Amino acid sequence: MSQNKTLRNDSRRTFLQMSVAAAAASAFRIVNEPLLAAAAIDRERKQFPPGAVVINANENPLGPCDAARAAVVSMAPQGGRYSYWLTDELVDTFAQQQGLKREYIRAFPGSSEPLHFSVLAFTSPSRSYATADPGYESGMHAAKISGARVVNVPLTKFYAHDIRAMLAAAPDAGLFYVCTPNNPTGTLTPHADIEQLVAKKPNGSVVLVDEAYIHFSDGVTALDLVKADQDVIVLRTFSKIYGMAGLRCGFAIARPDLLAKLENCGGWSALPITAVAAATASLKHEHLVSERKLLNTTVRQNTCPRKPTFSWSIPSAPLKKSSTPWPRRMSSSAASGPSGRPTRASPSAPKRKWMRSSPPSTPS
Amino acid sequence: MSQNKTLRNDSRRTFLQMSVAAAAASAFRIVNEPLLAAAAIDRERKQFPPGAVVINANENPLGPCDAARAAVVSMAPQGGRYSYWLTDELVDTFAQQQGLKREYIRAFPGSSEPLHFSVLAFTSPSRSYATADPGYESGMHAAKISGARVVNVPLTKFYAHDIRAMLAAAPDAGLFYVCTPNNPTGTLTPHADIEQLVAKKPNGSVVLVDEAYIHFSDGVTALDLVKADQDVIVLRTFSKIYGMAGLRCGFAIARPDLLAKLENCGGWSALPITAVAAATASLKHEHLVSERKLLNTTVRQNTCPRKPTFSWSIPSAPLKKSSTPWPRRMSSSAASGPSGRPTRASPSAPKRKWMRSSPPSTPS
Repeated sequence: MSQNKTLRNDSRRTFLQMSVAAAAASAFRIVNEPLLAAAAIDRERKQFPPGAVVINANENPLGPCDAARAAVVSMAPQGGRYSYWLTDELVDTFAQQQGLKREYIRAFPGSSEPLHFSVLAFTSPSRSYATADPGYESGMHAAKISGARVVNVPLTKFYAHDIRAMLAAAPDAGLFYVCTPNNPTGTLTPHADIEQLVAKKPNGSVVLVDEAYIHFSDGVTALDLVKADQDVIVLRTFSKIYGMAGLRCGFAIARPDLLAKLENCGGWSALPITAVAAATASLKHEHLVSERKLLNTTVRQNTCPRKPTFSWSIPSAPLKKSSTPWPRRMSSSAASGPSGRPTRASPSAPKRKWMRSSPPSTPS
Repeated sequence: MSQNKTLRNDSRRTFLQMSVAAAAASAFRIVNEPLLAAAAIDRERKQFPPGAVVINANENPLGPCDAARAAVVSMAPQGGRYSYWLTDELVDTFAQQQGLKREYIRAFPGSSEPLHFSVLAFTSPSRSYATADPGYESGMHAAKISGARVVNVPLTKFYAHDIRAMLAAAPDAGLFYVCTPNNPTGTLTPHADIEQLVAKKPNGSVVLVDEAYIHFSDGVTALDLVKADQDVIVLRTFSKIYGMAGLRCGFAIARPDLLAKLENCGGWSALPITAVAAATASLKHEHLVSERKLLNTTVRQNTCPRKPTFSWSIPSAPLKKSSTPWPRRMSSSAASGPSGRPTRASPSAPKRKWMRSSPPSTPS
């Protein structure tokens, strides 16, 4: 479990301790890691210099599509009404597109909340939280609150979640967190591996598959496992390819009994109708995902040529059980701004074996 | 404690069981009461008939003010960015207006969430949840989840919270919930009573003061108790007088150590920038609250004359420790639509001793 020493979270922490983010975080009484990215911003200045390429929070520089923007504008005069039926329409639209039953879908203002609630609902001092290393840290913070042991399992040499090692390391797991494409590496975990995890996991545990970045990749969704009534929760967000990070909309998709446990943690509240209307409009936009995926792929290929000239390397090995080389099979989501100029590594940065596709953590 | 038998929640439940709301709630697998109001709507029709006066969810028919609407529109193209500094600006604006320290303020997408989290954080099987009867039910649902005993204490004959009885009935309380103006009666609990509650409450308990409707009344805020570092959390929302129910913005205001416990329950997520920008614009609107309060008062006085002609009665007694008769001292918030025609009571409805200012529950 130590083949990827350079990827370990302790390395990440060392890096962060050296960064301005850590100093800013300290100043703003950061209680959990998702704020680190925000803390790195010069909050006094409150906005970025004109023309800046801003990629520190995995936001989509394209923003909402035109139809989504129009939907936001149309909601302004209706802002006084809860308008629950707009959420019904959003859920129905997604259900129809994905072949899901509507009661398997619960909309949230982003996917950060259901991620947090999943950890609170399914982990405890006696049920551990198993995650990848490096991985998206938000759930680890939640595990501190639930009192769960955090089991960090290094990625495989192909940068996938090491499912066998996760199962071995966490026989007491309450929740297995699989972020695919993974944050921060942008790499996929094969669907067959997730199936194995579901088949072999301890009784009573749940597999949480975070698909925040799946639209940028050719990865196979785990929604089929939800449809098959497995102990699986899939998270989706409108913050990434849909460019709606500031509007706040996402889904947890799971069996109703699992969703009910999240609702117990989060209570119930109406959703922002601006986000809901924009999300529905985005789902109904026939070409949005394919167009943006193509654009992202093009930018990434210009940024990360097959023979990298940067001070980092990228995984070139094919995915386990995949016969297609990396660039066609995987996408790092927001590794580059529209100019294709990555801003995270400096010329003097030490050579790393991975390229971040995200800041330490961003809400999703 | 039984002087207001007609106000008891079991009566309310009986009423609900007879209503279309209950049938609709059943059909939509309602897990908690806030959805009852929504369930009463004909969700298939998805909107109300043209010209309908809709008052079933305590929404403000005026909607967001012009400046707030403009703020929503201006956010549409920026929807791809988390824009944390907008929340900073909102918090700073409210802090400055109220003379609070910024770290005592935590913005949420509405005040339903911090209400739910407060109950989860401060009640348990050994720490009960004390509330008024009739009162806003949302916290009672949360108490079922935390496993806390729910202590329902009837209002006084002046329809205030019976603080002495609440203290006597819940010596094991973890949380005292005081909604003032109260939902559904629209009546105030005097500040002096809340001070008494804070002074005499059991060690380790917290007083949650829900001021969702305070702007419609002449009630005195409990924010001074927060400033004095008491065990008090105040909830505010932009859903009511600010007309932003569908946009989702509210505050929990308390000592940072209390807020941290709410954050443990709720995690951390970015807020909808449409709501945040609209909320800041609303706070900066100098006359918004006074104008809307005056309009509401006028409508209410037209709806509820001193000698009521409707099939209900309204409390005519002065508030405890108040020398001013009811109509000038209190406001029911959204008891009437702009036309002044209440729609909840039918001519054949039995005579009740109170007039609802809200549906069974609405998120706030």
